[in-house]
Amino acid sequence: MIERIEYADGATPLTGWLARPSGEARAAVAVFPTYMNTTPAVEAKSLALAEAGCVAFVGDFYGPDSPHDADTALAAMLSLRADPVAMRKRLRATLTKLADIAPGLPMIAIGFCLGGMSVLELARDGADLALVASFHGLLATPLPATAPIAPRILVCHGDVDWLVPRTEVLAFWEEMDRVGADWQFMSFAGVDHGFTNLLNPDGSANPAYHATADRQSWAALLGLIDEVAPPPL
Amino acid sequence: MIERIEYADGATPLTGWLARPSGEARAAVAVFPTYMNTTPAVEAKSLALAEAGCVAFVGDFYGPDSPHDADTALAAMLSLRADPVAMRKRLRATLTKLADIAPGLPMIAIGFCLGGMSVLELARDGADLALVASFHGLLATPLPATAPIAPRILVCHGDVDWLVPRTEVLAFWEEMDRVGADWQFMSFAGVDHGFTNLLNPDGSANPAYHATADRQSWAALLGLIDEVAPPPL
Repeated sequence: MIERIEYADGATPLTGWLARPSGEARAAVAVFPTYMNTTPAVEAKSLALAEAGCVAFVGDFYGPDSPHDADTALAAMLSLRADPVAMRKRLRATLTKLADIAPGLPMIAIGFCLGGMSVLELARDGADLALVASFHGLLATPLPATAPIAPRILVCHGDVDWLVPRTEVLAFWEEMDRVGADWQFMSFAGVDHGFTNLLNPDGSANPAYHATADRQSWAALLGLIDEVAPPPL
Repeated sequence: MIERIEYADGATPLTGWLARPSGEARAAVAVFPTYMNTTPAVEAKSLALAEAGCVAFVGDFYGPDSPHDADTALAAMLSLRADPVAMRKRLRATLTKLADIAPGLPMIAIGFCLGGMSVLELARDGADLALVASFHGLLATPLPATAPIAPRILVCHGDVDWLVPRTEVLAFWEEMDRVGADWQFMSFAGVDHGFTNLLNPDGSANPAYHATADRQSWAALLGLIDEVAPPPL
């Protein structure tokens, strides 16, 4: 069901994972995973997007050094984020590959955790997308938006996300308003970081998983996909 | 399709409007209108709830003095709100009548504008509801919650609602958190008060109407109704 795709960011080889709909595709969705890179959880989301009629392509943050446990993933993420311009270039490699694979479709980017931050970085960077959606993503940025943002923005946020205090929520709204972005924000009381993930990186149950927030936020995404890429009648 | 129902709050006669599903009902929903009292817009929402398998009962705020234009409606609303305890009693009359009409079902209350404030007032007052949903409702209250709140809470809010500044959004979150309420908050950038209403009270087009916010917020409501009152398999 999921096809391995090799691509590259300059000299860095990357490995993505592609899911295709059974019928004609209505949109191409880049899916950016958590700091753990591709996991079964994010593959399940890409399969759900394929069910919904989208080509879904899980991007690779790291290349050959892709981490396999939480400690190495944290180090890899911090390394990636240490150079925000290089990070945006890395993210754009996934969009470029997806546009090659599925040309001519409305393009969307979604992401979880670091992936949520990533899709907002792409929006801030001027990527030509119809929609971006962040799920428990980081909202702060080293390079705040200074130019109009093309994609519509959906942010799905756990109100007690320990990585994203309310001050950053307000700062995000203000940053987005300064450039006239079209955003929707869903916040869930008592819900912590990682609410879409059933499992922790070590495979144990994730206490932050929140079935309602997961389902409501996914429904909001599907509703907006229907707007930017209507399903066939 | 909509049945006129006479009821009362003490000596004040009230007139509600009832919509029933074609099959077996899964929930009873009290629908509180805007300060204009029952309008075709709110009747359409109650019919949509009946389509979704709910008994929907549009409550009456005012009784025989129900206003027919924006000026008299404003005066009537201010009169109702001048006594917050009496207002809560008035709102509870609708819940009581609905429980008589459709006993034994999970009870839900939704509302728009003054009706959005109303369902939050009922939640703060300890009403035994499974879910309340406010659409462009006022979030401030003369009687903040001091006891645990039973219903789940959905608030759908236009971020530039001229009646609800961000300071009141934050104050609402803090009020709800103090009593451990289970809330979800959807906010829509650039969307003003009244975003579910196609028409102004005078019948002219409402510039604040926002099709996406209307649709996404309604979908969020239906998602939560599915959780508190699952549809038949």
